[in-house]
Amino acid sequence: MESIKLRVPATTANVGPGFDIFAVSLKNLFDEIEIKKSQKEGISLHVSYPDDNYAIPVEIEKNTAGIAAKNLMNLFDIKNGLIINIKKDILPGSGLGTSGASAIGAVYRIRKLYSLGLSASKMIEIASQAEVITGGSPHADNVAGSLLGGFVLIKNHNPLDFIRLDVPSVPVVITGIKKSTQTTRPLIAKNYRLEDLKKQITAASQLVIGIIKGDLELIGKAINWDIISEPARATLIPGYYTLKSDLLKANALGVNISGGGSSIFTICKEENRQIIIKMIKSHFSKVGI
Amino acid sequence: MESIKLRVPATTANVGPGFDIFAVSLKNLFDEIEIKKSQKEGISLHVSYPDDNYAIPVEIEKNTAGIAAKNLMNLFDIKNGLIINIKKDILPGSGLGTSGASAIGAVYRIRKLYSLGLSASKMIEIASQAEVITGGSPHADNVAGSLLGGFVLIKNHNPLDFIRLDVPSVPVVITGIKKSTQTTRPLIAKNYRLEDLKKQITAASQLVIGIIKGDLELIGKAINWDIISEPARATLIPGYYTLKSDLLKANALGVNISGGGSSIFTICKEENRQIIIKMIKSHFSKVGI
Repeated sequence: MESIKLRVPATTANVGPGFDIFAVSLKNLFDEIEIKKSQKEGISLHVSYPDDNYAIPVEIEKNTAGIAAKNLMNLFDIKNGLIINIKKDILPGSGLGTSGASAIGAVYRIRKLYSLGLSASKMIEIASQAEVITGGSPHADNVAGSLLGGFVLIKNHNPLDFIRLDVPSVPVVITGIKKSTQTTRPLIAKNYRLEDLKKQITAASQLVIGIIKGDLELIGKAINWDIISEPARATLIPGYYTLKSDLLKANALGVNISGGGSSIFTICKEENRQIIIKMIKSHFSKVGI
Repeated sequence: MESIKLRVPATTANVGPGFDIFAVSLKNLFDEIEIKKSQKEGISLHVSYPDDNYAIPVEIEKNTAGIAAKNLMNLFDIKNGLIINIKKDILPGSGLGTSGASAIGAVYRIRKLYSLGLSASKMIEIASQAEVITGGSPHADNVAGSLLGGFVLIKNHNPLDFIRLDVPSVPVVITGIKKSTQTTRPLIAKNYRLEDLKKQITAASQLVIGIIKGDLELIGKAINWDIISEPARATLIPGYYTLKSDLLKANALGVNISGGGSSIFTICKEENRQIIIKMIKSHFSKVGI
């Protein structure tokens, strides 16, 4: 019986100024997903994870891999049974795209298992639908990032339209922090001042130029700015702005909050990585996280 | 006596979604500026133009070339006299950067005349200061576009910081329309909805990617979107949105308003240029412009 383990990368969405629009995939952090055909009807789902921080629903209707798998099987009218095994390494509820990784991993794997003719766009669409359960709406940023790698700009959700860019090698420090069960989306402001909007457009443009040109400092400065997600998500991270300011003083190039929070991602030069890791550890041991 | 005529290109600022931030220079539309040392003290300014539409103040304090020249001479404590001759081709008051072209042209020419050690940034800064008289604040987009050519992103005004990109060859139709003396800046909204902001960021990012990749269709779609300047400036162009919609149906790739208005710039494929010119002429002859 065919069974290949698939590694699905973590992603950081927003990437500073690109709320709901930008995502990048992370190189050394991923979940594993294995999907096999089963004689038994229906889908059975098993999730393993390194520690108690990782409790994840295994009911098909509550798990993004389960939902995506079921929708895909229905779409192609496939009646066979499936066994889905997920090995989590990406901390759930931390804004690193683990639910998206599970959803797109399942779709990608089932497509292969049944040789389904599905475009990347269609795969992203199906996986996005499964994301409704976590984000309240079908967001494509994380799933597109996981599937395509590199940097993704979601131009439109319906119909799905995106641009993918290669990303230069960027040293990143990701601090996996689980947010409370409280979703922070309602904290996001609905209205913005012209002056802030101009800065957000500038930062987003800068980020894209930095990525295409491989300019680390430009990327860093660009990801530092966000008026949409960061102010809302920072409320759940003790001492976030103090830590950010300290990290920038210690030559971090850019600091912001990953996706829906509360993980912090930091871009730096390779030679500064260790000191930055140390500072972050020290900060969170002080504030008791 | 040294005297070289300098051609200073017209520019279109905003370029769709980049209000006060983006500008591109135009290839086949420019003013000429000639600056000579004079035995007579002070600055004398002469402006010639093709027709009565072009009345421009020749008082030093009211003309951007005059202001920039005076400031620059003061800065370097040069007491000599100057004769400035400007031959306008760019329609003033039409949003095509003619005041910026005059200002930066003067600065560039005087720098050469006196071998002043001025960086591009410093030249842009001095010329921007002269722009206060037209825009009410020192805006650098047009002057930077005129000086540097290609596409310019103004990252910051004080201190001045910008990025310049090469621009692929893009067929453009510019319809020079003079706006009334009324400035439209006060019509620009001060607050924006989150959903519109996201679209503006998307369009700006798309534009930058389109320019770097030389993707004409991406550029066109990107410049079509603007929630800041276009709604305000469209109020002064009779039938603007009808014309825009008609042009897009006739395969124009993108249509928007240039700078502070009221000129319209249209991006198209070369083979559609003639039909687009015909449609615009027909529209404005109907509405009586």
